[in-house]
Amino acid sequence: MRVLGVDPGLTRCGLGVVDSLPGRRVQLVAVGVARSSIDDDVDRRLLAIAERIDEWLDEQMPDVVAVERVFAQHNLSTVMGTAQVAGLAMLAAARRRIPVALHTPSEVKAAVTGSGRADKAQVQTMVARILGLAEVPRPADAADALALAICHLWRPAGALAAPQRELQAMTVAQRAWAAAEHAARRPTRG
Amino acid sequence: MRVLGVDPGLTRCGLGVVDSLPGRRVQLVAVGVARSSIDDDVDRRLLAIAERIDEWLDEQMPDVVAVERVFAQHNLSTVMGTAQVAGLAMLAAARRRIPVALHTPSEVKAAVTGSGRADKAQVQTMVARILGLAEVPRPADAADALALAICHLWRPAGALAAPQRELQAMTVAQRAWAAAEHAARRPTRG
Repeated sequence: MRVLGVDPGLTRCGLGVVDSLPGRRVQLVAVGVARSSIDDDVDRRLLAIAERIDEWLDEQMPDVVAVERVFAQHNLSTVMGTAQVAGLAMLAAARRRIPVALHTPSEVKAAVTGSGRADKAQVQTMVARILGLAEVPRPADAADALALAICHLWRPAGALAAPQRELQAMTVAQRAWAAAEHAARRPTRG
Repeated sequence: MRVLGVDPGLTRCGLGVVDSLPGRRVQLVAVGVARSSIDDDVDRRLLAIAERIDEWLDEQMPDVVAVERVFAQHNLSTVMGTAQVAGLAMLAAARRRIPVALHTPSEVKAAVTGSGRADKAQVQTMVARILGLAEVPRPADAADALALAICHLWRPAGALAAPQRELQAMTVAQRAWAAAEHAARRPTRG
């Protein structure tokens, strides 16, 4: 299975493609960043990012697009652009009939480090280690996109939607995931 | 000049087309609502709305698309979907090289009622009056989309970007507009 991870952002949108291999192994296919100029109007910026996402979808032909779930209470100065780019990525996938999965930052952290509260550096270090890379992918948005793709491939059975969920004992990773999911679903105030 | 007003929303997205006529008169061309089902996944919902926006752009061929400017501190439960639909509308216009204008709710109220603090009913009443309609367009999202289009056509010179701005005495409407703009630009906390 091939997953395109999208770390949405209007200035830098991380894009990372990962293939699953037998034995829960994962392999880097492509990583990069779509950029737009802060000097342009927002509609031109959205178009620039959308055109790059279209190119990646057409070239990489992923089976799933994994997008970071954006919350309204995140960084107020950038959250509108982030939400809009997440929307463009979902739309581009839907137009191609490619399934979309949304994962919260806590779920991504839990999937690649075992803890939903890991810091960014820890996530990036683990992304490099999991993919067997000599260096951490730069910029951080690119590494985060890869983390999203890995998260989707490694999501524990307990994190699937209820009808697909198998009744089974939870592993340590599943418990970390469930805790992260629970925290993400708790109502918060902006 | 023909303007498509877009009142973004994931459940109901208002769409209204208005033509300008000589003497600051305006004429209703089309009004409606793009809907998506709350039972669908968000990517399918975004696709449903985007396809309707594409149809309206291709059929109505507006000269400008006027979209409500969404703020992060608005209704937290719906703001992400609203921002994403605003992004889709901007993208659809940008793909067709149609200019996009963003107007704040206060600017729209000031343009159609003379006060940036008018309530929704007042805005809807004025939309019907301005367009010579016997009844207020329903649902409210449709009326709000028409108000956005009228707002764009009636925006006072003082509201244009600085290089285009003419040095002239402000009318009452321009002062109301400037006050609304000022209020909208004031930094707020979420």
